[in-house]
Amino acid sequence: QLRALSGVSEPPRGLVQEKMTDNAVFSQNKVLTIDTMNPNVKNVEYAVRGPIVQRAVQIEKELREGMKKPFTEVIKANIGDAHAMGQQPITFFRQVLALCSYPELLKDNMFPEDAKSRARRILQACGGSSLGAYSASQGIDCVRQDVARYIERRDGGVPCDPDNVYLTSGASDGIVTMLKLLVCGEGASKTGVMISIPQYPLYSAALAELGAVQVNYYLNEEKCWSMDLSELERSLAEARKHCNPKVLCIINPGNPTGQVQSRQCIEDVIRFAAKEHLFLMADEVYQDNVYAEGCQFHSFKKVLFELGPQYSNTVELVSFHSTSKCYMGECGFRGGYMEVINMDPEVKAQLIKLVSVRLCPAVPGQALMDMVVNSPQPGEPSYTTFMKERTATLSLLAEKAKLTEEMLNTVPGITCNPVQGAMYSFPNISLPQKAIKEAKALGQAPDMFYCMKMLEETGICLVPGSGFGQKDGTYHFRMTILPPTDKLKLLLAKVKEFHQKFTRQYS
Amino acid sequence: QLRALSGVSEPPRGLVQEKMTDNAVFSQNKVLTIDTMNPNVKNVEYAVRGPIVQRAVQIEKELREGMKKPFTEVIKANIGDAHAMGQQPITFFRQVLALCSYPELLKDNMFPEDAKSRARRILQACGGSSLGAYSASQGIDCVRQDVARYIERRDGGVPCDPDNVYLTSGASDGIVTMLKLLVCGEGASKTGVMISIPQYPLYSAALAELGAVQVNYYLNEEKCWSMDLSELERSLAEARKHCNPKVLCIINPGNPTGQVQSRQCIEDVIRFAAKEHLFLMADEVYQDNVYAEGCQFHSFKKVLFELGPQYSNTVELVSFHSTSKCYMGECGFRGGYMEVINMDPEVKAQLIKLVSVRLCPAVPGQALMDMVVNSPQPGEPSYTTFMKERTATLSLLAEKAKLTEEMLNTVPGITCNPVQGAMYSFPNISLPQKAIKEAKALGQAPDMFYCMKMLEETGICLVPGSGFGQKDGTYHFRMTILPPTDKLKLLLAKVKEFHQKFTRQYS
Repeated sequence: QLRALSGVSEPPRGLVQEKMTDNAVFSQNKVLTIDTMNPNVKNVEYAVRGPIVQRAVQIEKELREGMKKPFTEVIKANIGDAHAMGQQPITFFRQVLALCSYPELLKDNMFPEDAKSRARRILQACGGSSLGAYSASQGIDCVRQDVARYIERRDGGVPCDPDNVYLTSGASDGIVTMLKLLVCGEGASKTGVMISIPQYPLYSAALAELGAVQVNYYLNEEKCWSMDLSELERSLAEARKHCNPKVLCIINPGNPTGQVQSRQCIEDVIRFAAKEHLFLMADEVYQDNVYAEGCQFHSFKKVLFELGPQYSNTVELVSFHSTSKCYMGECGFRGGYMEVINMDPEVKAQLIKLVSVRLCPAVPGQALMDMVVNSPQPGEPSYTTFMKERTATLSLLAEKAKLTEEMLNTVPGITCNPVQGAMYSFPNISLPQKAIKEAKALGQAPDMFYCMKMLEETGICLVPGSGFGQKDGTYHFRMTILPPTDKLKLLLAKVKEFHQKFTRQYS
Repeated sequence: QLRALSGVSEPPRGLVQEKMTDNAVFSQNKVLTIDTMNPNVKNVEYAVRGPIVQRAVQIEKELREGMKKPFTEVIKANIGDAHAMGQQPITFFRQVLALCSYPELLKDNMFPEDAKSRARRILQACGGSSLGAYSASQGIDCVRQDVARYIERRDGGVPCDPDNVYLTSGASDGIVTMLKLLVCGEGASKTGVMISIPQYPLYSAALAELGAVQVNYYLNEEKCWSMDLSELERSLAEARKHCNPKVLCIINPGNPTGQVQSRQCIEDVIRFAAKEHLFLMADEVYQDNVYAEGCQFHSFKKVLFELGPQYSNTVELVSFHSTSKCYMGECGFRGGYMEVINMDPEVKAQLIKLVSVRLCPAVPGQALMDMVVNSPQPGEPSYTTFMKERTATLSLLAEKAKLTEEMLNTVPGITCNPVQGAMYSFPNISLPQKAIKEAKALGQAPDMFYCMKMLEETGICLVPGSGFGQKDGTYHFRMTILPPTDKLKLLLAKVKEFHQKFTRQYS
């Protein structure tokens, strides 16, 4: 009956009638099935919101429904979602957003003058003075100007042209857009994109979707997840045998690995990119999240310009930033920008055309990005509160980074590099052979088996290292440092207890 | 010096030194050039923000700089951007958004209780009670539940499962996501997607980017841009010769053509899709924008269910909605949803995975979508004002739709179908042979030549019909009905004058 309606590829009638109760056959009759869908999409993996997180959501529901568990709540340390973990938004940002959303409030005396003047400036730049109008596809002009000035201040005066700034829906949007421009070709001439392993799985997911070749280079865990020039060379030489490597992606400070690359390292990478004719993509969304003593954030752009004109006039670089991380943690607003350096003018025109198809990034996110790059200054009424809130958030993160590293390193079989920056620890875990064997029998990555067991027994939700990539035979998990200190301590104690129990059980 | 840094494909040194001042060679040395970029992206076209709009922005700048023109302002009727054209946002929506952005305001007495209770409900559903937390990738649970109830009310009780609802960043995001899932194959088995001509160019742009086959079916201009079954059959039969047509897209009410399809037509389309085994994509973002007497919006879903179980249990349908159009006009928030019907459960899991890579749609846009589907009810304090504002906006649009049609039809050489719905007129314009010849000599589409001349001489910014597609030898432009009534009258008078002058000049 179902297929009788179709004239396309009708199977013998009897067969269909007979099997109508069979779900598989029913499904085969659909236009869109797992077998007919885009295979590139099927190849996409994204562990940060993968099966372990889906199970965590299910367990939360079971707890609500009164099901008995060896724990009373799920603690999610799987994703860098600061507000969900209790971090408070910056008051000034939210005041300006409220004023922009409902300009009647500009008449109210409850808001400080600097918040009002920021809101007026943004509204004046919006069509019809409304956040509800589309902006220019590249982003609101005055916001891009503010971003440019922010970058200049950050980089000690290196000039920034607002025309090189593109506002985005979070950094992910910018990264995918750039990869879309860069990826082409088939077979041996297919674009190869070098990404660190471990990596943030947006990269592998975007490459799978675009059908590009993922070229892995390994970070050096022994040297605190630094980048090795020799490893970059090995990876590139290997890739050139079967594809056309054109792009080198770096995440600094690192996700999931929490390292902060040294100035020397960044210089080496830029020289390497110039020598090997690679387009650089620098994911710098954690630029304010640097905790370890002696560590400092160096933007790729600043180092590029310090290397002199033979580099700064030639090396193609794009850098990404976002409202989601640092002291803001405003993930839900999907704000961000990217700055392109030395991009071919014809390609720029293509980039503007490409982003215009999606009209514009959400305007509230653009407004928020503006406040980040144009925050209260000394002498303005909101300055003191703003600085107090900003410093408190960053100090607390620094404290929790230290705490996490120290407590994890007290567990026999867990080795954790210093969390120099970003929001994650990525400890190495020793797994007993028996556990590895059992996981493999189940067709699971051993650290997925481990994390899933931990979730079921303790309610702690982490992401297995296999979701980010790691050297063969090594196992890790990624854990955010975001839970409130008390909960973080509890979480770390539970991890310790679980690891010891797990090790005993499988030894 | 530039290429000396690269070991990849270094040209002879002398040559490079010699040509370093030549921009073309400089550009060839870049990794990313117009020749090395993704050719699919190069093929993308998007007229709504294309060259004519870029020139309009330039002219605005020239006017600001004091350059003399035969007009004093640019009037943009190129894009459905209601707030930019002076439409006021709904007070209630903006109050709730302000409350959600800065929850301190919940303590204030200036907001009505229903606005506060909506804000509390949304905040309770957000991680950490903050719009700054990521939501579930499919969208906030309670918002999806509200969407489901709204759809049930709209469709006279046809059930809607919140699990079939996905929140999106505007409708464009949903459409592209669905096409991504559906498009695959190479050569003769490449997915074909049927789209109306004239079409909204997001569709052609997305298909170009995905490398799918665009299959054109023509709307019947003589019958007020209705869909003809025979034309669908012709188009499909033609397409089957060289690709695998799997998808049929409909925009109703129509963009750019402003028609509202009859119930009979929608029934025919559904039967056709069932018979021909096509996946239906219904772009229904203008569902409240119906002005003409005797016209009514019929959702594809409602008609599907009225056709009985042999259709409602089998035909795969996705419907898109948005906060950008109707009486809201909140384009900048990028809010939207899609509802999928009869989607294979395995594909649903793939869809959830795919959207989770981009984490979530912007949360303020989700909150706004919630207010649209959960607006003030009789008895609530904001109801009267809400209804007054909503009705005023829709009545004004209806008035302007009528005005536009009537005035355009007074111009000899311009024929305009009734603007039954949506926000656009798409009149047919007669162009003199001499003008067509001159345009072709310049390598321009004749209606692009016409619109560009109109822009330069009158400051009016329209989009040529060629940007949407049209029957060979016919010419059109798309004009929004959004400018304030006074400005719209002025605009229409100028169009009339220009068209007469243009016709004289080239006759």
